[in-house]
Amino acid sequence: MLRTACGILALALSLYAFYSRIRPGDQFPKLRDKWWGEGYRIMETHYVEDSRIEVTDKVLYDLQNRLKATQKLHPSYLGMGQRYGIRDNVMQDVLDYWTNHYNFTKRLEFINQYPHRFVKIRGLTIHFLYAEAQRKHQNTRVIPLLMVHGWPSSFLEFYEVLPMLVKSDPTLDFVFEVVAPSIPGFAFSDYPHKPGMSAIYIAQIFAELMEILEYDHYYVHGGDWGGVIIQHMAHRYPHRVLGMHSTMCYVNTITSNLKFIIGSYLPSLIYEPEEMRLWNKTANSIAFMVEEGGYFHLQATKPDTIGMALRDSPIGLAAYMLEKFSTLTNANYRDREDGGLTEKFTMEQLLDNVMVYWVTRCMTSAMRIYAEAITNYELEFNRYMRILVPAGCARFPNEILLSPRYILKERYTNLVHLTTYNNGGHFAAMEVPGSLAYDITSFVEKVEKMRPAKKRS
Amino acid sequence: MLRTACGILALALSLYAFYSRIRPGDQFPKLRDKWWGEGYRIMETHYVEDSRIEVTDKVLYDLQNRLKATQKLHPSYLGMGQRYGIRDNVMQDVLDYWTNHYNFTKRLEFINQYPHRFVKIRGLTIHFLYAEAQRKHQNTRVIPLLMVHGWPSSFLEFYEVLPMLVKSDPTLDFVFEVVAPSIPGFAFSDYPHKPGMSAIYIAQIFAELMEILEYDHYYVHGGDWGGVIIQHMAHRYPHRVLGMHSTMCYVNTITSNLKFIIGSYLPSLIYEPEEMRLWNKTANSIAFMVEEGGYFHLQATKPDTIGMALRDSPIGLAAYMLEKFSTLTNANYRDREDGGLTEKFTMEQLLDNVMVYWVTRCMTSAMRIYAEAITNYELEFNRYMRILVPAGCARFPNEILLSPRYILKERYTNLVHLTTYNNGGHFAAMEVPGSLAYDITSFVEKVEKMRPAKKRS
Repeated sequence: MLRTACGILALALSLYAFYSRIRPGDQFPKLRDKWWGEGYRIMETHYVEDSRIEVTDKVLYDLQNRLKATQKLHPSYLGMGQRYGIRDNVMQDVLDYWTNHYNFTKRLEFINQYPHRFVKIRGLTIHFLYAEAQRKHQNTRVIPLLMVHGWPSSFLEFYEVLPMLVKSDPTLDFVFEVVAPSIPGFAFSDYPHKPGMSAIYIAQIFAELMEILEYDHYYVHGGDWGGVIIQHMAHRYPHRVLGMHSTMCYVNTITSNLKFIIGSYLPSLIYEPEEMRLWNKTANSIAFMVEEGGYFHLQATKPDTIGMALRDSPIGLAAYMLEKFSTLTNANYRDREDGGLTEKFTMEQLLDNVMVYWVTRCMTSAMRIYAEAITNYELEFNRYMRILVPAGCARFPNEILLSPRYILKERYTNLVHLTTYNNGGHFAAMEVPGSLAYDITSFVEKVEKMRPAKKRS
Repeated sequence: MLRTACGILALALSLYAFYSRIRPGDQFPKLRDKWWGEGYRIMETHYVEDSRIEVTDKVLYDLQNRLKATQKLHPSYLGMGQRYGIRDNVMQDVLDYWTNHYNFTKRLEFINQYPHRFVKIRGLTIHFLYAEAQRKHQNTRVIPLLMVHGWPSSFLEFYEVLPMLVKSDPTLDFVFEVVAPSIPGFAFSDYPHKPGMSAIYIAQIFAELMEILEYDHYYVHGGDWGGVIIQHMAHRYPHRVLGMHSTMCYVNTITSNLKFIIGSYLPSLIYEPEEMRLWNKTANSIAFMVEEGGYFHLQATKPDTIGMALRDSPIGLAAYMLEKFSTLTNANYRDREDGGLTEKFTMEQLLDNVMVYWVTRCMTSAMRIYAEAITNYELEFNRYMRILVPAGCARFPNEILLSPRYILKERYTNLVHLTTYNNGGHFAAMEVPGSLAYDITSFVEKVEKMRPAKKRS
């Protein structure tokens, strides 16, 4: 029954997509030369500042006061897991830990283990993390890798995987140096002062960042919004991007939707034999999106309203963010009374990320990314975009959307690397950093082998 | 283009509705004999307590502290009206007024002008307002009227219209006495301790309330969720309900959806000549629901998560609620930088209602009504329900959903009263109380004339 409904919905969406193909001749609207700062464009010198993350005592004192003044949480229904939203007992534990055990001043040492750098681009201060390559041999090549986070995570998502990428592996002739920026409006990057900062404009800013840092060629990796952003980079700057690696490869075209519908009845038509285990997940994914997509719908339409509350209440902010760390890590955690929150993550990992959103007061501007994405302009790119640079897609079994190779090939025409793992969900970089580091490295190894040796830097 | 998309969407929904008609033979699932209090059922004596609304100084002091500690609001984009959500300048004005001018202790005098009563039903304390009839002549009949509010309003919604209903009109031989309860989970009514309190179970509780108050026959009125609840009362208790009056009459059946699709192309087929002005509004209503329905989607799936923030932050609570008082009063207010918030309402009216939600900490349990409504159980009732008692529908032009007579007749088989006004939106009782009082009175007058004189009480 639900299957049929999903089929009909998908069909409707495909027909809609078909009818709204208004300008197939002019598929890619031009990028405008935008200035995102206050007022008018000024001359910028791209001076890169080295810094540390510091937070004033006043901010921490204010936070303590708010945590202590938190209203008694509304009792959750017994036996319903997280089906009505994150439970009171889960958040009570978070609140107790946050108030009594969590020490942000100490956590700043951890956060500051990498240098934090800042540079002005198009009127905005862009924050990024720089993780230097730790070469063992002088003839080990250093390969630059841009890593882009998503919502509701931050650059902190990569802290577990970074050491694995920047340390020399004796079996490889290369090692990474990593640039992990904060998306404009997130964490320590400025928020845009004008509307319209969609993924494609973020891609433009990050391409300019890499140019300022004097990288001629580099790899890109991302998941969630990071995955959307790096796709645009791969599409628009193929002369710079050597390869793109994503944990959230997806296609959204008329034909891909039709294939999904057909595949939900006749899976063998679209899934390869070893992909068959993805089938059930895909069939459930539309129902999952309806049940779990309320936040998406709200953020895509009225981010500023809900932002008022999330900026003002630490427990509210944490609840809103941590629901995702439960549900998107494993959909089955919804049926657990504890939400499985500390099953894969430590309370420190979870609260560090919440703290980054709290101290930078960035929730409203971060959520606006959803509103900017759901525009005809952005959707049109998404419909026709073909990525020609080598692409690598890692499929973690609890990721929201998992597509078969047959469908992925539509967009990623040069899909050189496609893997399926046994563990891991939406926050794979935090949850299974070893698998992710291995996957990125394997992908880059393949691509490097295909490149003419003389061109390798 | 949008038209086509809406048509396809409506078609898909209709097909879905058609395919999900699983048990046409057993159309109405039985009401279970539920107990909503903590623990197990106990014997209840339905003693009605008279009371006043009081709030402790501690609560008001805590609120003042929170208001003063409100984080600087995130700057809204210039020139975008309320398109990204409620604006910072709108909420800054609210915050200033709330902190410096609003006096809740004084407002309590206004709120307590009617007696507040409490009675235990099925384990829950149910709050209701009682407005006595002010008869001028002894032979003026007193007619009981149950009035049910919606979300995010409360019993306060009726304060402007109540005096008009309970005062004798020399041209009429009747006058109303009004019972205006708080929906369980809202304001001063207890929240259910078990899941499943959908509109039909609320209808059951209110029918029991009227029984306890010894009303054999009565009229019912409602809008928003109140409109849904009183429909169920009219459907299930036709021997008690003399007539139902609603500002949100709607039908959601396969055939009504098909009619809407056809009507969007050939309006003259479904709209009567004098209804043609509704046509454009209807055509726009699906787009409006997508743009403005994020809150609905979130509340229908994860009310408890967002509730964490809204319980803890007064500015967040006010922003979330007042967005509705702007947008649902007039969709065009979205394009105004001030949101038109005080165009139709005073700051006192708006803040009184926010305060009721704040002091009772009821937002989480109030939002759960959306989650309980979107179940197969509830939807099935909605699909087949035919209302046989006399129905009256008032159509205010800025209401969300406006249906032509041709469609309304499907559900309201005895539609004796159907009006269309020139002014007014979703909160008609507050905005145009005169029109609403006139409409309710006219409807009841018609129904009373049709009733056999000897049966009139």
